[in-house]
Parts: sequence; C-alpha cells; structure tokens
Amino acid sequence: MSETAVLLSGGLDSTTALAWAVAKRSSVRALTFDYGQRHRIEIRMARRTARGAGVPLTVLKVDLAAIGGSALTDPSIPVPSVKRFAHSPAGPPPTYVPFRNGVFLALAAAWAESNGVREIVTGFNIIDSPDYPDTRPAFVRAMERAVNLGTRAAFGGPRIRILAPFIGKTKADIVRIGLRLEADYAHSVSCYRGGEAPCGTCSACLLRARAFREVGTEDPLIVRLERVRRGKK
Amino acid sequence: MSETAVLLSGGLDSTTALAWAVAKRSSVRALTFDYGQRHRIEIRMARRTARGAGVPLTVLKVDLAAIGGSALTDPSIPVPSVKRFAHSPAGPPPTYVPFRNGVFLALAAAWAESNGVREIVTGFNIIDSPDYPDTRPAFVRAMERAVNLGTRAAFGGPRIRILAPFIGKTKADIVRIGLRLEADYAHSVSCYRGGEAPCGTCSACLLRARAFREVGTEDPLIVRLERVRRGKK
Repeated sequence: MSETAVLLSGGLDSTTALAWAVAKRSSVRALTFDYGQRHRIEIRMARRTARGAGVPLTVLKVDLAAIGGSALTDPSIPVPSVKRFAHSPAGPPPTYVPFRNGVFLALAAAWAESNGVREIVTGFNIIDSPDYPDTRPAFVRAMERAVNLGTRAAFGGPRIRILAPFIGKTKADIVRIGLRLEADYAHSVSCYRGGEAPCGTCSACLLRARAFREVGTEDPLIVRLERVRRGKK
Repeated sequence: MSETAVLLSGGLDSTTALAWAVAKRSSVRALTFDYGQRHRIEIRMARRTARGAGVPLTVLKVDLAAIGGSALTDPSIPVPSVKRFAHSPAGPPPTYVPFRNGVFLALAAAWAESNGVREIVTGFNIIDSPDYPDTRPAFVRAMERAVNLGTRAAFGGPRIRILAPFIGKTKADIVRIGLRLEADYAHSVSCYRGGEAPCGTCSACLLRARAFREVGTEDPLIVRLERVRRGKK
C-alpha cells in the first residue's frame, strides 16, 4: 500500500493538488484542518470538492486560535485590504499563521503513520513562498527529514514523503494545470474574510483574480455564484 | 525577552525539566497538551506542579485520538502489562503515539513564535529513546531545523531552540537531578493506565519504580498517596 494524502484547504492551490494526485496516483485521500480559522467555510468547501473527486476526506482538529498571532485566527487582528499585491520586506503579513504548516504537516505525518499513508501532497508554490516561511522548499525538506527521524521510519519502518509538485509554479501556472485536470474551482474558496464570495480586497482574492486574469479564464467560483444569484432573482 | 517554555506532561522527566528550567532560566512558562489521552489525569497534575513552581501553564488542544494507532489514545488497544522492562527490537511499543512529539513540538513552536518564547525544553532521555523515535537527538535537531526554516526565523526573526537537557541521562540520573532541584514528584504521574496511583505493571510504572529504586529513595507520589490513604482511614 502506498496511499497518498492531499492537504486540502479548499483553496486554489490545494484543490489543484487534489486533482493532480487523483490523476497521478492510484489511491488518494484528503486531509483538512478545523483549526479555529476565520474562514471556516473552507472546511465545507473542501468536503464538497473531495466528494466531487470521489476522495475520502478526514477533518483533524487542532486549536490554533488559542495560539493566535494571526488575522486568520484572531478576530481582533484585521485582514488587511490591499490595492495591489506586494511582498512585504518586513516579514510575514498579518495573515501568516505562526508555523501553521509545521503543525499541519506534523499532524498529517502522525495520521499518515497511523494509516499507512506514504505520501503527503501540498499545494505550496512560488507566489506564497516569499511571504510564508512554512511553504518554502527548505522547510519542506527539513520537515520531511524530521518526520522520518521521528516516526517508525527511524526504526526501518516505511518512510513518508512530503511532496510539493507546484513549488516552482505561479498561481497562473497552477490554474492552467488545474483546468487541464478538471480541478473543481467552482467550489474552491480563497478569500481570507470567510465568505463564499470573494471580498476582492484581501491578498488571497487579489492573487486569485490575477491568476485567472493571466490565464484568460473566468474564475469558475464567480461564474457559479453569479448563476446562483441569477437563479434566485 | 528570552522566555523559556517547558513541555510539561506531568511525568517524571518533564517535571524534572520544569525544575531544571526554573533553576537555570529567569522567565519560565509551561505548556501541556490535551490530546485525547487515556491518562488525562496528567493535565490536572501538570496544573498542580506548575502552580507549585509558580509558573504559568498553557493547555493546548489537539485531537490525537482521532488519529489513533496507540494504546494511549485508542481505548480498544490495551496498555501491555510487562514483568520486566525490555526494549522491543520489533519497533515502537503499543504505547507509542504516532509522531506525538512532532505534533507537540510543532504546536509549541507555533505558540513560541506567537508569544516571544525562544526556548522549548523537553524531558527526552536515553531510556525512552530506543523505543520512541520522536525523543531521539537526531529528531530533536531535525525538528529544530524545520522550526527555524518554517517560522519568522527564516526571514531573520528570532530563532527558537529546542533543548533536551537530559538526552544522555537515565531516569535514575534524572531523579537525582530533580531531587536536588526539589522537583515536585509527589504530584507527577507516569502510569499509562490513567489512575493517580501507579498500576505497577505498565512499562512507565516499571521504569519509574526502577529509577527510584536505583536512587535509593521512596517515590514521593507513593509516599503522598499512602499518607492520603491513612488519613482517610
């Protein structure tokens, strides 16, 4: 058995990672985290996306809101409105959740070790990596090493790989890959503010809109929401 | 600020680690985990031990019972009774919780990053390391590296150290150190079965009893429980 698990947040990158894994691997599962996030809607959307892809989804609970330090887990820290996306030279933005992917990968590894899963697939990419240290190649390699030294692999048991197939790709590249693989973008949400409809002013909405603009396709999420809106009228 | 946080499970090693940190560092906090463990009593005991040491305790929640794969988180897996403690050549024992310390250290690092804590102290030791991969020196070093590549440290922010001052020590060595530092062993529990009184047959009880025997001191927990029992008669 060499099952593959995808970390599915329900956003653009991880929805594409799921489609990628379904296309490339024989046995795929998805994992999402209920961590006290402002945009809890992503759990519901991840459920739909996983169901649509015929992939079982596990939801693991961890309380990162108790840790705080981020606009995504502490309601008293506002999500910044940005006019134009720019990397901050001063360090991670307020939407950075301290070591979130470290926690997620550690939990995914624990779950993988317990369930015979050998591969963990992430949607990490080159657009996020300048702002979010826990999405960068050096971190992924270091985390994989820690996982294999801290699990049965250290005693000759099965190794666990952490894959980031889009690590060198932009969000436009990722959307192109996803459209080819029929990723379900109509049910993927990126907005940091927690609504299903994009706020259009947070950095996640800006980056998503830019990706679809660069690809020259309408965002299927917006197309679907527009259809729903019209149907209701 | 260079605050130190101790991972306090309320057992022998971490109770000693707390006493060690209080003796060596100016500003100490403690962290424990409510993770769905069979021996939840350790949370209550950790509270008492921290209060006694005048150290604030934070309890973080993470559901490892949903991950399972261990006698400590899955009630259907029995805690083995052992006559004599021996390392298993076949891999971790049933009381191993898959990558538990990976998850705990990742959460501790997230919390440290969010709270200006620069040092995380663990009670890892040479007696546990042959059976529990996530207590070994190579794992600790790899995890520290992952933490510093996946947090603000990667952008020039403060580094987080993971300390294991007893990594080369036996449990008897640790008890000797703890007795000198007046560690509160009367409120530390080690038993895997979840009672305050040692069952005397699980590997944790056996190792604890052996440590006090080697040191030539009665276990303060047993002395206290005996006193309580007599008082009640």
